[in-house]
Amino acid sequence: MLPLWRRITVLDMRILGIDPGIAIVGWGVVEQKGNSFCPLDYGAIQTPAKMQISYRLEMIYSQLNEIIDKYSPDMLAIEQLFWNTNQKTAIAVSQARGVILLCARQKGLDISEYTPLQVKQAVVGYGRADKKQVIAMVSALLRLKNLPKFDDTADALAVALCGGHCANSRLAFTSR
Amino acid sequence: MLPLWRRITVLDMRILGIDPGIAIVGWGVVEQKGNSFCPLDYGAIQTPAKMQISYRLEMIYSQLNEIIDKYSPDMLAIEQLFWNTNQKTAIAVSQARGVILLCARQKGLDISEYTPLQVKQAVVGYGRADKKQVIAMVSALLRLKNLPKFDDTADALAVALCGGHCANSRLAFTSR
Repeated sequence: MLPLWRRITVLDMRILGIDPGIAIVGWGVVEQKGNSFCPLDYGAIQTPAKMQISYRLEMIYSQLNEIIDKYSPDMLAIEQLFWNTNQKTAIAVSQARGVILLCARQKGLDISEYTPLQVKQAVVGYGRADKKQVIAMVSALLRLKNLPKFDDTADALAVALCGGHCANSRLAFTSR
Repeated sequence: MLPLWRRITVLDMRILGIDPGIAIVGWGVVEQKGNSFCPLDYGAIQTPAKMQISYRLEMIYSQLNEIIDKYSPDMLAIEQLFWNTNQKTAIAVSQARGVILLCARQKGLDISEYTPLQVKQAVVGYGRADKKQVIAMVSALLRLKNLPKFDDTADALAVALCGGHCANSRLAFTSR
């Protein structure tokens, strides 16, 4: 029989991973049972480029609400933004991220934020992995038959996996 | 009697001006009757620095909802953000701004965005006016007995005044 701390680390939860954006918000819901992960659903919220920003934010808010209502995740896992990345759209992406965080808070989800380094280390085992390696590992770990249409969706699944790994590690650490 | 285009430009509306921020969101509601402006109320939404960002965003959202419900403004006037201003808090401020835009959209307000140059030109008549000049002019135009506690509130009143001036000018222009 497993020792107590190993049994306690068998954690079951649903994680909503989000790759924030204004034109495309990648999302993926992953069910975690201990150390195994199963994708429940994944996709992308898209907003038209010519639409006023406030309408785009409302689309993101309402569609994310529907996703949370449908899959009842326990946790939101989302990447941290950094000032020097993708400056052109950074204000718009940050505005969308604010709406996403609000939505998750109103639905009572735990919210965890991860750096891109943490996500790559958790999924590929190497913090400087490139996008293709991340997508390949996400696809392998979740046994996806079809690759997601958007890289943003694969990134969302990656951050969901990272959230699951980190929650497991914290639990293993605190239970020992 | 005034010519038709002058009579049409006598515009009555309520404008909610917002100076977005994460620690302090300045706000001011101004009633416009033609070319005269009357402050209905003004203040600041404050969020604790040590609180998690998602809780701070929720505080801003719910308090702004209450302000809109209480004063029923027709329009939100808000400053545009620029990437190179105040880099340290720009992501957090943008996230708050996203929540503010969402809130105004959900309440059906018209949303107008102005550059700092437009606000200064509308209020002081000079695009490079400094903060003190803006506060002094806001205070004079609105006949404030007491200066607002926070500069953010004065900035919010300034952008509300700018919104009113611009709406009047557009109407005058389209009516001629």
